[in-house]
Amino acid sequence: MLPAGSGPPDVQLPDDLAEHLLDTWPVARLATLGEAGDPAALPIVFARDGGALWSPVDGKPKAGGELARVRRVCANPRVSLLLDHYEERWERLWWLRVDGEASVVAPADPERDPAVAGALRALRRKYPQYGTVPVLRDPPTLLRIEPVRRRSWCAGEAALAAIPR
Amino acid sequence: MLPAGSGPPDVQLPDDLAEHLLDTWPVARLATLGEAGDPAALPIVFARDGGALWSPVDGKPKAGGELARVRRVCANPRVSLLLDHYEERWERLWWLRVDGEASVVAPADPERDPAVAGALRALRRKYPQYGTVPVLRDPPTLLRIEPVRRRSWCAGEAALAAIPR
Repeated sequence: MLPAGSGPPDVQLPDDLAEHLLDTWPVARLATLGEAGDPAALPIVFARDGGALWSPVDGKPKAGGELARVRRVCANPRVSLLLDHYEERWERLWWLRVDGEASVVAPADPERDPAVAGALRALRRKYPQYGTVPVLRDPPTLLRIEPVRRRSWCAGEAALAAIPR
Repeated sequence: MLPAGSGPPDVQLPDDLAEHLLDTWPVARLATLGEAGDPAALPIVFARDGGALWSPVDGKPKAGGELARVRRVCANPRVSLLLDHYEERWERLWWLRVDGEASVVAPADPERDPAVAGALRALRRKYPQYGTVPVLRDPPTLLRIEPVRRRSWCAGEAALAAIPR
């Protein structure tokens, strides 16, 4: 999968690059467990603040998806977040996985809750879309993920070089 | 999140479009369970053949990742596959989730095993990369996922219209 001479295959992402990706990569896939122990993944937006990863839950109860996410995290706080890049040039592939403990945060007054207010600032800074779309719906709900373990993989130097700084 | 008049929010993907995506979408995130019941997701390539989804395991035991995937599926065959699209225009987002039962297939003679030979043809047809990269490594190993349940979501008509046919 690697062009000759492009460095060793199967390398990890350097720590500073992993940190950079956690601050800037726009999407992650969140793996959770259901009450029956069934795994599932869902795409989420997220931002890092105060060492935790925060993802707003834009509650649309009728759709089932959002409420399911909250229900699953309540049933089992163990989650895993995957950041990755796919393209046709397989020598540029990488992934970064953060296993963690998730909790559902439902602040009564989000903008005055110090931890949540910081998370909202980080989300608005990262996503210009929140200039026109509300970050929180009613009732205000977020997932807070406390990282426990990190793993990464990349196809080699070409993958590292292609990551936007 | 939707421009006015662009149709109802929170719609499912039509069946024919979901089928099309399962045949053509290049990457999925596979959620699995570890022996300790810990969820994790990993990006995979896959192709559909004979009603099942097949993903080659390009065994690189030293990296841990590939072997871990096999170990996890052996410990717990319940998996979930996520196909999704992310971009800055949130009105174009969609996801398609296939929950299923996975098994590890290690054919002695892959090209002569009827089921596996069909899967290999489907993988080579879908990924031109396999013209230069071998589909299987040594020992030949694939994951076979039997779909059990499907769920989908899309942000609305703009998302449906943006999916390549």
